[in-house]
Amino acid sequence: MDVRILVTGGTIDKVHDPRLEALTFSRDGATLIPEVLATGRCHFPSVQIVMLKDSLDFDDSDREAILAAVQAAPEQAIVITHGTGTMGQTARYLAGKVGGKTIVLTGAMRPHSISASDGSFNLGGAVVAAQVLPDGIYGVMNGRVIEAARLDKNVEAGRFDL
Amino acid sequence: MDVRILVTGGTIDKVHDPRLEALTFSRDGATLIPEVLATGRCHFPSVQIVMLKDSLDFDDSDREAILAAVQAAPEQAIVITHGTGTMGQTARYLAGKVGGKTIVLTGAMRPHSISASDGSFNLGGAVVAAQVLPDGIYGVMNGRVIEAARLDKNVEAGRFDL
Amino acid sequence: MDVRILVTGGTIDKVHDPRLEALTFSRDGATLIPEVLATGRCHFPSVQIVMLKDSLDFDDSDREAILAAVQAAPEQAIVITHGTGTMGQTARYLAGKVGGKTIVLTGAMRPHSISASDGSFNLGGAVVAAQVLPDGIYGVMNGRVIEAARLDKNVEAGRFDL
Amino acid sequence: MDVRILVTGGTIDKVHDPRLEALTFSRDGATLIPEVLATGRCHFPSVQIVMLKDSLDFDDSDREAILAAVQAAPEQAIVITHGTGTMGQTARYLAGKVGGKTIVLTGAMRPHSISASDGSFNLGGAVVAAQVLPDGIYGVMNGRVIEAARLDKNVEAGRFDL
Repeated sequence: MDVRILVTGGTIDKVHDPRLEALTFSRDGATLIPEVLATGRCHFPSVQIVMLKDSLDFDDSDREAILAAVQAAPEQAIVITHGTGTMGQTARYLAGKVGGKTIVLTGAMRPHSISASDGSFNLGGAVVAAQVLPDGIYGVMNGRVIEAARLDKNVEAGRFDL
Repeated sequence: MDVRILVTGGTIDKVHDPRLEALTFSRDGATLIPEVLATGRCHFPSVQIVMLKDSLDFDDSDREAILAAVQAAPEQAIVITHGTGTMGQTARYLAGKVGGKTIVLTGAMRPHSISASDGSFNLGGAVVAAQVLPDGIYGVMNGRVIEAARLDKNVEAGRFDL
Repeated sequence: MDVRILVTGGTIDKVHDPRLEALTFSRDGATLIPEVLATGRCHFPSVQIVMLKDSLDFDDSDREAILAAVQAAPEQAIVITHGTGTMGQTARYLAGKVGGKTIVLTGAMRPHSISASDGSFNLGGAVVAAQVLPDGIYGVMNGRVIEAARLDKNVEAGRFDL
Repeated sequence: MDVRILVTGGTIDKVHDPRLEALTFSRDGATLIPEVLATGRCHFPSVQIVMLKDSLDFDDSDREAILAAVQAAPEQAIVITHGTGTMGQTARYLAGKVGGKTIVLTGAMRPHSISASDGSFNLGGAVVAAQVLPDGIYGVMNGRVIEAARLDKNVEAGRFDL
């Protein structure tokens, strides 16, 4: 089954910038998702950058752009990499608008570019979930499949819970 | 949903031993699976060591021990970490003997203890798959869910393919 | 020869905080320098925390505290881990005040806690330099021994140069 | 000061081969030393591959080749990356034959390609030592400068000691 990964940014895609002494997106607009896939020896998904933004900075036009990318994708199985801050909000925005597709949002609490990131574990779950779940909108984070209505970060625990 | 991870060894659990200048299991009989889960910020599975062996060294008594552990587990969703060499053989051994449970075998081509391992990606997929697939025996490797009959390593490509 | 490492903070000691989505010092006031040493299989230096601060936030009282720690140390060979922002300023502050000791400042452009840090390379150089250089104040960064008068970050290149 | 690094192989340069499930040299004859230097943000040494071998497999012709490379090098400061098994034997072979140069042997107990290697710490020390020590043959491992006569691995402790 073909899988498309729509990249929207978020912590999973941040890198350390020694000049700024901060975590930021790559200056050249590149995504690390192909590297996460290569580490997982997962060669088959198509990767498409929709944007590279912190999801706390998303507004409705960003969510419209994500929706348009989902609708334009020829694949039935879609993974969206997304910041953890408003992942649930985007999931709920998409709900009811993408009938017939399985959409899985995922991301990370730690950037993939730094050691001990949860990005690989989460993306591994999301790629599998997009292929086997019935159509609908889901989040896959930290080993759980979470329906859109309940997809919210447990800030205290630093993870997503059911 | 409760998930149990049965640890049997394999590459995912190997560590570098500087005296032997080789990859081997921890001398103290420990598994790295809790560390893989912690990296994935996945706190809920129960982890049980059945054995720590290279799957090329498995014989029927090892597979009987795995079967017994599956049958004894109270959970319906079971992940088995396993060497890649004979993962398919174990899957086919279990087929038809564990009705009513969802069994997902997984592992890694590179040890979790060394950088850029596929172990986190694979375990992330397996933990999700064990919760959402119907009962049966599956392998989850490198982004794919593979039925027991076709679960075999593509040695040339260094991964599992459909 | 005994070596003392005085820890003052800086990038080398920062860790990722997933709540803040930023790099910061450990909440519990711990330093990563013992872990850098353990990775280098270097067991002999004494490690003492003077403070854990970003060197851009240093004022004269911080530099007085560093000087006092240097003077109080029984060892002749001293390494100071320090932020890169004002490393040269501290070196020049210490110059002429610590006769008879070999003082080597070092640090990192990337935190040790994230992958591909220069902290290990730099500390490896500093620990050796403190044992073999004549008494005086030096910086050791990125493979170079740099005298205090010329110890300044090349911001453009993201390293220290002669 | 110009520094040349002569690469002879050893653990520092080994990579994981998932087909062999073992640590071995890169199939394409490449060395990881430029990557160790890049991680250390150390841009100036020249890197030259003399061979890529396990030092337990060295014979006199290998040591002659290393000596010839040292003698042919235009630089006064030379680092030799070397397996830990017979590092001391090579140091003693070179002693007295390379007058006027500072030769520093180094290596690692864990490959650079896997996490938590001592290779970066050791090479950082060796590059500095080659520039500041008087001419002669030295080993730099695990934070110590060790004269050729006493350069031998402490197998029990997994490091080099004075």
